[in-house]
Amino acid sequence: MKRALQDITKEIDIECSTNIEIENLATLKNSIKSSLSFFHDKKYLADLKTTKAAAVILEEQYANELPSGVIALVTPNPYKKMAEATELFAYKPTTKTFEPKVDATTQLCDSVRCGKDATIGANSVVMSNVFIGENVSIGENCIIYPNVTIYHNTKIGNNCIIHSGTVIGSDGFGFVSRDNSNIKFYQIGNVIIENFVEIGANTTIDRATLGSTIIKSHAKLDNLIQVGHNCEIGEYSIIVSQVGLSGSTKLGMGVVMGGQSATAGHLKIGDKAMIAARGGVTKTLDGGKIYGGFPAVDIRLWRKTQAALMRLVKKK
Amino acid sequence: MKRALQDITKEIDIECSTNIEIENLATLKNSIKSSLSFFHDKKYLADLKTTKAAAVILEEQYANELPSGVIALVTPNPYKKMAEATELFAYKPTTKTFEPKVDATTQLCDSVRCGKDATIGANSVVMSNVFIGENVSIGENCIIYPNVTIYHNTKIGNNCIIHSGTVIGSDGFGFVSRDNSNIKFYQIGNVIIENFVEIGANTTIDRATLGSTIIKSHAKLDNLIQVGHNCEIGEYSIIVSQVGLSGSTKLGMGVVMGGQSATAGHLKIGDKAMIAARGGVTKTLDGGKIYGGFPAVDIRLWRKTQAALMRLVKKK
Amino acid sequence: MKRALQDITKEIDIECSTNIEIENLATLKNSIKSSLSFFHDKKYLADLKTTKAAAVILEEQYANELPSGVIALVTPNPYKKMAEATELFAYKPTTKTFEPKVDATTQLCDSVRCGKDATIGANSVVMSNVFIGENVSIGENCIIYPNVTIYHNTKIGNNCIIHSGTVIGSDGFGFVSRDNSNIKFYQIGNVIIENFVEIGANTTIDRATLGSTIIKSHAKLDNLIQVGHNCEIGEYSIIVSQVGLSGSTKLGMGVVMGGQSATAGHLKIGDKAMIAARGGVTKTLDGGKIYGGFPAVDIRLWRKTQAALMRLVKKK
Repeated sequence: MKRALQDITKEIDIECSTNIEIENLATLKNSIKSSLSFFHDKKYLADLKTTKAAAVILEEQYANELPSGVIALVTPNPYKKMAEATELFAYKPTTKTFEPKVDATTQLCDSVRCGKDATIGANSVVMSNVFIGENVSIGENCIIYPNVTIYHNTKIGNNCIIHSGTVIGSDGFGFVSRDNSNIKFYQIGNVIIENFVEIGANTTIDRATLGSTIIKSHAKLDNLIQVGHNCEIGEYSIIVSQVGLSGSTKLGMGVVMGGQSATAGHLKIGDKAMIAARGGVTKTLDGGKIYGGFPAVDIRLWRKTQAALMRLVKKK
Repeated sequence: MKRALQDITKEIDIECSTNIEIENLATLKNSIKSSLSFFHDKKYLADLKTTKAAAVILEEQYANELPSGVIALVTPNPYKKMAEATELFAYKPTTKTFEPKVDATTQLCDSVRCGKDATIGANSVVMSNVFIGENVSIGENCIIYPNVTIYHNTKIGNNCIIHSGTVIGSDGFGFVSRDNSNIKFYQIGNVIIENFVEIGANTTIDRATLGSTIIKSHAKLDNLIQVGHNCEIGEYSIIVSQVGLSGSTKLGMGVVMGGQSATAGHLKIGDKAMIAARGGVTKTLDGGKIYGGFPAVDIRLWRKTQAALMRLVKKK
Repeated sequence: MKRALQDITKEIDIECSTNIEIENLATLKNSIKSSLSFFHDKKYLADLKTTKAAAVILEEQYANELPSGVIALVTPNPYKKMAEATELFAYKPTTKTFEPKVDATTQLCDSVRCGKDATIGANSVVMSNVFIGENVSIGENCIIYPNVTIYHNTKIGNNCIIHSGTVIGSDGFGFVSRDNSNIKFYQIGNVIIENFVEIGANTTIDRATLGSTIIKSHAKLDNLIQVGHNCEIGEYSIIVSQVGLSGSTKLGMGVVMGGQSATAGHLKIGDKAMIAARGGVTKTLDGGKIYGGFPAVDIRLWRKTQAALMRLVKKK
């Protein structure tokens, strides 16, 4: 989807004297030559100075931090203006359905409905009442159980199993609260699921705001799990039921998260870290260790606190 | 649905010498002239004294508290008897499907199924395998993603977005445990969703027992949330994923509930209160403050308790 | 499904000099004469000594503990080898659909899809977009709301209500992590739901690994609950929303579990025990008492610890 920059800036009410073609919206870091990006938080200052974006929405005081040639789009509210811009690139849902591109060995129930340009690989089985959105691809040897929903632009690799009721690619939770209103930051990224991934029943995996939410190969997810927008789950990770991962958190390889555990957003959890059941992770954690409690700490420390608490009561 | 009072009292085995027509079942407070109501908890005594109901099921000792002209239906078990009465007014599910009333601009996938008298407004898009129950109305400019279920009598306003797998209007959890049995209190209320509401994937919003569960305009709900029967969520409120709201709790305007937080039932949370992730609310809370922990307290106090607990361990 | 033992042992690469017919895979305790079983944990030693299985996969050192006549299949990795054997008995999903066996009074929406040999009893109502798998039986007077998924071999009794989005019989979470890989332990058991059971919306009930996950008569389950593989929920139990039960935990009769409470796996909870909201059960609990906190203890003790924690802070 291409749009003239001045058409965009007119819609979001920012002055702009140059006109070029914008092909996508992206973070500063992931921008390419035809991207429109935005800067709203000082922790991304290094990304601002090196971005490849064509144009960046930002506050006036930061305009001179931009690499030469990048167009500054100045506003006091860059986050809100970027949210407004996302609407112009948002997917327009439709009820039109199409025949997917399949192999002779692909099995599809008659009740499956597909958007435009869906493809499903050899030996895959797509059961009753599954919805497969526009431009979705599903690889070979997959099993999609009944009543699964896969939103537009999702990419699923080979040998994956998705259980019933699971929703892949629904909108991440992105709202800009300003002056008693919640402006939607349209979620224009997607979900990528690699190979040999199994996902349980009634789990939800949100599409990325910009970019991709990624479930890497051999990861196994249980039931009723929430995976926020832009999360990454590393290879061979094991996520037990009712876990909640907040937006943009990245799990390394072989991470184990126990039942009902959770993480705050924008964290990193190192390779082979284990979070005990109910653990609530509030900061970035090293790999190779076991954590528990809320806020999550070394599990031995958490156990000591629980024992100390009991002693406190029993003394009396 | 109208029924003669003596037909009802005969079914639930209570004596009644007067006969009138009963049009609905309601709480004491919400009763109108043709309502049948019940009194089972002293905290509603003020409501009993001022009710407009035609008849009230109650224990003998409270009969003289009724306003004059209201019929007393005396029993030692008013809650159980009311539960039995709800069955007589319960919705009878059917597999018959009907064409909904739509605008020329409404989009409906061929796989959508509707109950009797469903209406869907202009420019709304209803995607694959959605079920829309009897007497449901959906306003204009709404998007209902695939595999959503909307039970009978639900009312949805304009400009709402409902993501896949979400269930609106399922039965609230109402059972009367007596003598080793769980008697169902049939859920004969409904759900009302106002305008500009967005609801994530696989969230469940229970219908009211009597009356309505209400999600007010501009509220935004994430994925995998439980909203109990008769809850109210105020305008512009933000409810993050995996939150649980127990029955009859009312959230004010602009309340924010963090991920996996929860409330007990029958509470009030004031305008612009924020409950941190994992907070567990056990009592009514003032607006404008931030709370955390379980039981939820001022978040600064909760943080102090966590720090004190750590000091306790580290001293040793 | 029958298979020659030597065909199985060839596939999983274990030596075996005897050939017999294997009809099912089972735990040591539940094995019958034609079962293949496995021994991987010393706590099942008593079961090993008394098993009725035809053959048992186990480490060499335990071979002489077997009852006479039982074939020892020796390997250093019995759990992994059994996992490989489960694949040979696994259900092969298909998109073929069949007419179910119904009574003249059964109501089925045209959008319902059924696997082979499904049966649905008199006066039952199966609403839109429900999927009923192969060899499922549903009794009389049941209501199955829209978008429910019932996997193969599930057995549902009479007078049950299943709300929308609920998934019954999806795979339990069984993976053997070895040498950087997650081998699937195929889930070849089923789910049994007895009579007068009501299950809320978007709940997930996993099929048993081997044997059955069982929900006994008159149990009531709310929304968004996770029931792990091989769990049992006793008669008249009440499970409130967002509860998580880990695999193989058994609840007695009349157990009450509050909202967001949870249990670890392989525990027993006695008759009429109550677990308060958010309680996290980590060990087997006696019946007839009230528990709270995490790890769950007598609720009075938990309340004391919370009060002590507050005093600790307020002293300063």
